[in-house]
Amino acid sequence: MDLFERIHAHVNRSCRLSDADLDIVDGLLEKRIVKRKTMLLQEGEVCHFEAFVNQGCIRSYYLDENGFEVTLQFAIEDWWVSDIASFHEQKPSHLFIEALEDCELLVLNPATKESLLQQIPSLERYFRLMVQRNLSSLQSRLFKTIATSAQDKYLDFLEKYPTIPQRVPQHYIASYLGISPEFLSKVRTRMARKSI
Amino acid sequence: MDLFERIHAHVNRSCRLSDADLDIVDGLLEKRIVKRKTMLLQEGEVCHFEAFVNQGCIRSYYLDENGFEVTLQFAIEDWWVSDIASFHEQKPSHLFIEALEDCELLVLNPATKESLLQQIPSLERYFRLMVQRNLSSLQSRLFKTIATSAQDKYLDFLEKYPTIPQRVPQHYIASYLGISPEFLSKVRTRMARKSI
Repeated sequence: MDLFERIHAHVNRSCRLSDADLDIVDGLLEKRIVKRKTMLLQEGEVCHFEAFVNQGCIRSYYLDENGFEVTLQFAIEDWWVSDIASFHEQKPSHLFIEALEDCELLVLNPATKESLLQQIPSLERYFRLMVQRNLSSLQSRLFKTIATSAQDKYLDFLEKYPTIPQRVPQHYIASYLGISPEFLSKVRTRMARKSI
Repeated sequence: MDLFERIHAHVNRSCRLSDADLDIVDGLLEKRIVKRKTMLLQEGEVCHFEAFVNQGCIRSYYLDENGFEVTLQFAIEDWWVSDIASFHEQKPSHLFIEALEDCELLVLNPATKESLLQQIPSLERYFRLMVQRNLSSLQSRLFKTIATSAQDKYLDFLEKYPTIPQRVPQHYIASYLGISPEFLSKVRTRMARKSI
């Protein structure tokens, strides 16, 4: 697969770009290969990237008041990962961003992103929709923490991330759902029994 | 003040529009006067509006797992208020949105917003920046809940919303900060003593 095939298809879902525009996109994106377990961002650092995942799996998380990791997002193929607030305001992040698999990323920094939007203003729509999805996802996490049973949370998770349970350790999924790994294990066992 | 003066100035901060474009904006925004205590949105309803606050004060909140109100956002002059996820996906909201004062709003619905962006694509940038601020604010609330003293939370709050303490009941501010009204009262007393 061509390096830019995935992102071209992704962008084309929300705006039609000319071949000349796509060339500009390709010229500004920087390919980055990162090994499994690489930390892309640590709490306290400023986030200088927005990364499109061409291949691999990435996790963002923060530490709660007791020092426990809370998984905020998984990003797999076709997802963008960043701390958008830190990236745009160039202020220290509260997040950790970590590669869970070997990854191939296409990366923008603040300068290349601004240049991209200057040259192709119609990409504003693409990025607006991306931020909206991000906001929507964060809001729904805030509400899902409330008043939803662990099983329903896990079913929602499977709908959103069907391939993740085969790709990441179970305790990361538990830390995303806000339940203990033991409890997640019970939920999965119960669901498996029901589906026989 | 002219009905559209405020929003023209606000839009002009992030993109320059021609007079013809501004006329399109004015033609699509619908003025809405709402009385104090009006509920603009209830949990379970689909949010059909994005409202720019020309005058007044609005609060959005949700109910936590114990049925307590958690204030998510205050919106005063120059803020937009909506449930963006519900608005764009036309799915039921988890939020309540309530006027705390008599308000004058300028309102878009999904059709007029889409028409606006079709006719003036350069507004995509304005709305992207707005969603980014929204996301940034939600993220920072998530982290502020953690590991910040009540006094620091209140100082951050004053920086973000300097005029709100004069405008809304103290218990709403407490429910935004995630502390009890009694504790907020102690924090304020302590701060007042120090500043003498």
